[in-house]
Amino acid sequence: MTQCAYHDQLISIRRQLHQFPEEGWTEFCTTAFIVKHLRELGYEVLMGEKVVSRKDCLGRDPKLVAQAIETAKARGVEQALLDEMQELTGCVAVLDTGRAGPTVALRFDIDCNNVQENPSEEHRASKEGWASKRPGLMHACGHDSHISSGLAIARWAMEHKDELKGKLKIVFQPAEEGVRGAAAVAASGIVDDCDYFLSSHIAMMAKSGEIITSPVGFLCTTKYDISFKGRPAHAGIEPNAGRNALAAACHCVTQLLGIPRHGAGMTRVNVGKITAGEGRNVIPVNAKLVMEVRGETGEINQFMASETENIVEGVAKSFSVGYHIEKMGEAVDLFNDKELVDMLDDVCAHTDGVKKVLHEVNFGGSEDATILARRVQAHGGKAAYFVLGSDRTGGHHTSDFDIDENSLDIGLNIYSEMLKRLMK
Amino acid sequence: MTQCAYHDQLISIRRQLHQFPEEGWTEFCTTAFIVKHLRELGYEVLMGEKVVSRKDCLGRDPKLVAQAIETAKARGVEQALLDEMQELTGCVAVLDTGRAGPTVALRFDIDCNNVQENPSEEHRASKEGWASKRPGLMHACGHDSHISSGLAIARWAMEHKDELKGKLKIVFQPAEEGVRGAAAVAASGIVDDCDYFLSSHIAMMAKSGEIITSPVGFLCTTKYDISFKGRPAHAGIEPNAGRNALAAACHCVTQLLGIPRHGAGMTRVNVGKITAGEGRNVIPVNAKLVMEVRGETGEINQFMASETENIVEGVAKSFSVGYHIEKMGEAVDLFNDKELVDMLDDVCAHTDGVKKVLHEVNFGGSEDATILARRVQAHGGKAAYFVLGSDRTGGHHTSDFDIDENSLDIGLNIYSEMLKRLMK
Amino acid sequence: MTQCAYHDQLISIRRQLHQFPEEGWTEFCTTAFIVKHLRELGYEVLMGEKVVSRKDCLGRDPKLVAQAIETAKARGVEQALLDEMQELTGCVAVLDTGRAGPTVALRFDIDCNNVQENPSEEHRASKEGWASKRPGLMHACGHDSHISSGLAIARWAMEHKDELKGKLKIVFQPAEEGVRGAAAVAASGIVDDCDYFLSSHIAMMAKSGEIITSPVGFLCTTKYDISFKGRPAHAGIEPNAGRNALAAACHCVTQLLGIPRHGAGMTRVNVGKITAGEGRNVIPVNAKLVMEVRGETGEINQFMASETENIVEGVAKSFSVGYHIEKMGEAVDLFNDKELVDMLDDVCAHTDGVKKVLHEVNFGGSEDATILARRVQAHGGKAAYFVLGSDRTGGHHTSDFDIDENSLDIGLNIYSEMLKRLMK
Amino acid sequence: MTQCAYHDQLISIRRQLHQFPEEGWTEFCTTAFIVKHLRELGYEVLMGEKVVSRKDCLGRDPKLVAQAIETAKARGVEQALLDEMQELTGCVAVLDTGRAGPTVALRFDIDCNNVQENPSEEHRASKEGWASKRPGLMHACGHDSHISSGLAIARWAMEHKDELKGKLKIVFQPAEEGVRGAAAVAASGIVDDCDYFLSSHIAMMAKSGEIITSPVGFLCTTKYDISFKGRPAHAGIEPNAGRNALAAACHCVTQLLGIPRHGAGMTRVNVGKITAGEGRNVIPVNAKLVMEVRGETGEINQFMASETENIVEGVAKSFSVGYHIEKMGEAVDLFNDKELVDMLDDVCAHTDGVKKVLHEVNFGGSEDATILARRVQAHGGKAAYFVLGSDRTGGHHTSDFDIDENSLDIGLNIYSEMLKRLMK
Repeated sequence: MTQCAYHDQLISIRRQLHQFPEEGWTEFCTTAFIVKHLRELGYEVLMGEKVVSRKDCLGRDPKLVAQAIETAKARGVEQALLDEMQELTGCVAVLDTGRAGPTVALRFDIDCNNVQENPSEEHRASKEGWASKRPGLMHACGHDSHISSGLAIARWAMEHKDELKGKLKIVFQPAEEGVRGAAAVAASGIVDDCDYFLSSHIAMMAKSGEIITSPVGFLCTTKYDISFKGRPAHAGIEPNAGRNALAAACHCVTQLLGIPRHGAGMTRVNVGKITAGEGRNVIPVNAKLVMEVRGETGEINQFMASETENIVEGVAKSFSVGYHIEKMGEAVDLFNDKELVDMLDDVCAHTDGVKKVLHEVNFGGSEDATILARRVQAHGGKAAYFVLGSDRTGGHHTSDFDIDENSLDIGLNIYSEMLKRLMK
Repeated sequence: MTQCAYHDQLISIRRQLHQFPEEGWTEFCTTAFIVKHLRELGYEVLMGEKVVSRKDCLGRDPKLVAQAIETAKARGVEQALLDEMQELTGCVAVLDTGRAGPTVALRFDIDCNNVQENPSEEHRASKEGWASKRPGLMHACGHDSHISSGLAIARWAMEHKDELKGKLKIVFQPAEEGVRGAAAVAASGIVDDCDYFLSSHIAMMAKSGEIITSPVGFLCTTKYDISFKGRPAHAGIEPNAGRNALAAACHCVTQLLGIPRHGAGMTRVNVGKITAGEGRNVIPVNAKLVMEVRGETGEINQFMASETENIVEGVAKSFSVGYHIEKMGEAVDLFNDKELVDMLDDVCAHTDGVKKVLHEVNFGGSEDATILARRVQAHGGKAAYFVLGSDRTGGHHTSDFDIDENSLDIGLNIYSEMLKRLMK
Repeated sequence: MTQCAYHDQLISIRRQLHQFPEEGWTEFCTTAFIVKHLRELGYEVLMGEKVVSRKDCLGRDPKLVAQAIETAKARGVEQALLDEMQELTGCVAVLDTGRAGPTVALRFDIDCNNVQENPSEEHRASKEGWASKRPGLMHACGHDSHISSGLAIARWAMEHKDELKGKLKIVFQPAEEGVRGAAAVAASGIVDDCDYFLSSHIAMMAKSGEIITSPVGFLCTTKYDISFKGRPAHAGIEPNAGRNALAAACHCVTQLLGIPRHGAGMTRVNVGKITAGEGRNVIPVNAKLVMEVRGETGEINQFMASETENIVEGVAKSFSVGYHIEKMGEAVDLFNDKELVDMLDDVCAHTDGVKKVLHEVNFGGSEDATILARRVQAHGGKAAYFVLGSDRTGGHHTSDFDIDENSLDIGLNIYSEMLKRLMK
Repeated sequence: MTQCAYHDQLISIRRQLHQFPEEGWTEFCTTAFIVKHLRELGYEVLMGEKVVSRKDCLGRDPKLVAQAIETAKARGVEQALLDEMQELTGCVAVLDTGRAGPTVALRFDIDCNNVQENPSEEHRASKEGWASKRPGLMHACGHDSHISSGLAIARWAMEHKDELKGKLKIVFQPAEEGVRGAAAVAASGIVDDCDYFLSSHIAMMAKSGEIITSPVGFLCTTKYDISFKGRPAHAGIEPNAGRNALAAACHCVTQLLGIPRHGAGMTRVNVGKITAGEGRNVIPVNAKLVMEVRGETGEINQFMASETENIVEGVAKSFSVGYHIEKMGEAVDLFNDKELVDMLDDVCAHTDGVKKVLHEVNFGGSEDATILARRVQAHGGKAAYFVLGSDRTGGHHTSDFDIDENSLDIGLNIYSEMLKRLMK
């Protein structure tokens, strides 16, 4: 396999970003980096509320955002650029060829994980000195390579502008982890005019040289944070005077875990965290649950979500406590359009380095690109999501995660060939 | 101790009634017996809605009532008498002396227990041939002796009519077991004009020769039947389509048992029975709980009752099932008026056979005479409830229960002496 | 479609049996009818422990068995025949051709459902006078037609004995409902020497003229009855002295419903019935749960069953109550052997009346023929199960259930043609 | 009321200690202060394992202890003194008169609360500049005044040494909050030889000038920290592979709150805090409950504690998770010996400033002096605990708490007069 002309850039940018990972909704330095790079290439770049609907942000913590802005300032991000961002991360590069043709959107996600990178010599990034410099944060899902791929395809498109027709939008999406960001990007309307939508993920269940052009089994999911508010009382003196938020939360959990199975397909429910109570001898006032449901289809997931909301309301009634339920993330299922799958198959057949094309492989997780894909499809466009195989050294979201960087060349070739065919 | 003039009657009537026990709200034969006896003595006897408020009947099963009326007819109770009863059991004997004076109410309860009497020779009633002839029913709480005592004091009062002033009302109350009947009798208003109210129970925690003139610790209680109504579905094919009444009921139980303790005094909660579901592979549609709460005071009991109702409503919401909550019984706490306690103490001190007078002994249970006592007190009258000690052969509500019948003489002497003093 | 020579017999025997349905493990009259018919045809018939392992009977109620034997005697079943049965229902007809060849087992189930048949004129059996004469019992799953089919193929085989080689075993299996009977038949070893095993079900999701030759998605299932044994106490006086079996049962339910989903496939859990407690004011002593788990594969079902047993043991510990867990039924998944599926496909292609052959259709339920199929496969034989399509008037297990009796001709033709090919 | 000779010292030491409050088991600076003061007075002072049994320390956090030792060093506490303490706080002053006589123990507790002191001018300590200098820590229960009282009576005893006979032990007990320290002091055996034991609390439900010489209703209590240890798994991919510690903890809570009421007296149960889980989509591995039970008597509390341990073990079994249950605190009930109550009554009658002596007032809380009192009584000695009334500005354990310091004179007079009578 020969390396593409962008090989070195793909790797160097990925490794540069790898060192300063930013978690969802706090990617101010990352966004600044992307924006500057795109502007140097000559792109019009949209930011802030033009590409992210503020009220549709899920799981966005204002405190973390404020800290991140301070960090960005300290690291030299200009106030003017921050002003353009309007406290919202991510951006969209727009290339209008000026020639009649379709509008095509590509989407790359940019946030990192809450994972502490393995500092040992066995881990390449640590050994070679480009490991994360931020404790507890790491690009452990390969989004660093997504960004470098997005920037490489941006360069390619600008360099091949004259061969293309129509309009190109390259979406750099914040907060994919926890499936939080896509809903707000979709709600901004930025992809509503798109005729085609393409996105991909590195590695997952595919090895170097493999491409999955029609992954299936994207679990729909809804993430909730649930809180209960009770009334304190001395547990020895007058327990009856309290309103026990901890008891409500625990009964809520026992009910949530018992939401019925669904005859039409797989479901999941997990309460991942609970925190409640103030002191041993006080009837607990505050309780918080961090949970998620999943369903094999949108309808099944909706069933799980409705049951959850019902249970929370009922339990709050039973215990006479207040409650608040907040949606923290959401992803839907995905149906790749046949036209694009066929085109991907054909492109892969002619792409150097692709050894195997796989279909109907189970994705087995959630991905919020699905929300953007659905949005495009709902407006009459077509969408596809593929998996770019890559050998990896550890599981996604683990401290040992690393990819085979040579795979990035393959990815770039697929994207550029797709653009050639779609925007001709 | 010499036997009183009514000794034989006290025993023979008790044993006669013992053979045909009738459970709460079905005492048609028993009521007929009492009414005829009272009318022979020359009493005016009130029945039906005059003494029982139909809409306030708790825990009254129309099917059992209908069967009992058929049984009564088959045993020769005249239709005319049944018509007077208006499908309601119990009656009140009224003796108006025609002379100005206070109105005094005495109250005796008449129903039996759902207990199978011990058929062995060791059990006196079985050995001597006057055991219950009705399978599964037995006067195992001594209410048979209450009736014979009520009829004996009725005879005494009629025989001593000229020595008395004011008015006497002897209340034969249905359905004390499950504390179901008194609320309806009270609601009829029959005791609203009473200046004094007296009632008692045989045996309990007092031995022959002991009288407790101021028992305490009558637990207030509310009895509920709770039902949930769901929607069926095949548990294998589409469990999601069902609404699980059994799950709701079980979660309801776990919440009910966790109602907080009360800082101001004792509480109790018990779910005594649960029945739910139709078949192994069907999401259950019907569920029923039989339960009760108790509290050391009326306020505490009310706390328990409110929590119960809250939980039921909340659980029904959580599981999207229908619910119905029905009050099946109720008793309150009791505060004997000092004037009557002092009078009882003095009477006891002069009554043959009384060896010991006890105060402040814990009753440790519920008794719905308390509702009538409260009603009288609420209208400005005074009330007292005492325990007439009696050796017994087994616990109350057990198949071995029997009393020392000689105690009945003592009880009659106390009642007649009290009437002499109150109606002078 | 022309009717086969056995058409009238297929229908008349089915309707005759339809009138006297017997539930699982009580099919004494039914077994007697089958045995006599088979012996008249000249079969050797095995009964009792030769074909049913007594200790492996699941969900067999000795009281119902005893009653059923009395009923059978009253209906004229000879004592000698009952003695042969050894209180165990079902039988196996054996035809040894005397010529070297394979051993083939066919299996037909014979029990009815606990369903009250629709008495209205709209329901054919009621209109024509051959509805169930037993209240609450009905052949509402078509096993009556299975028996008549089994007897017809028995007649056919005897009539074509000279054309066949090897040995034929026709298994009339008791207690399929609740998947209770097959385990005991398998454990008897009666199919251990079989080279081929065939069974089928009428109707289900297939219409008249359709045959499903490779149904999939047989849910593995285990049925349990669970009981808890506590200690009584007066709920008002000393609740602490009790051991609350009802509370244990309810907490058990809340835990059972929360058994985790399985990543490898579908699961189910249902507690279909709960009964607990003796009286409103008594800490409950006895509690019983009727439940089932299912899993898409044997391994998944085993996970559900293990979790169940674990929960029961843990809850009993938590509440210091005794417990008993009894397996009441069991079915496994099914893998039709390709050789037989191919043969069935070819046979269907040449069978009059078959309009459509379907594959990989979801069975969506449990069937204990799977246990016999597995047993045969475990001993090196091959097995297949097919669905014989038939229009029906109501769902299986409903009071309106009826089949298109013409389908029985198709079934008989398939079975006879299969025997011709297998035993040639 | 005239001020006693120690008035200024009582106040100044109290205010000095008030500024540097230390929570239970971390009172190194406080202990150092006490020890030095006592040694200056001429006392023999016992520390470390001589007065605190290390293995019987309840609720002692090694991290907090280590930090506190660093803090103590930083504040100038000598290493030699810290060495004597052996990482254990508290001390016992011993005065042996050399004359035959009884051994008398007095006990004063020395730890503070986790309360943030009110910084406003309305709060006297803040206004006058002697408020707590440690954020989140405050002497909000008056133990600062207990220490100053202990030191004052130490001075008095030394000054009146020649008038006394026998031996005096003044116990400065660590970690009373959470009732954690007394068990370890008792287990050291330091009070086993005592003939008399006296302790007291400032304020509570008594106003300035009131003394409660026989408080009742000390609730027995046991404090537990409970943890569960599960196994992680991805909640979407293979939830079955996890062992859910959070689910176990929540079910544990629902069961704990449902521990039955007790017929013989009041009970309490509270789960004050729960923390569990690592992330939204991970089956939770770690869970922790912070809880307590109480009972009106030792026997009832033991019932609650046993039920708790049973439930934890059962739930761990149900969910196949590991568990650890650690006793964090313990207090028992108290029975003042009549000899000492009578003596206290007589002393109070002759003490300047005492306006009212109360008996049988409900203490309504827990206090671990009870464990030392019981230990003395178990060895044949006599014990009493009294409440030294004092007007207060806020509830105990609140940020507004302050006392009427004049009450300390009364307390000192009572203690010194008691010593005169006991050690004569």
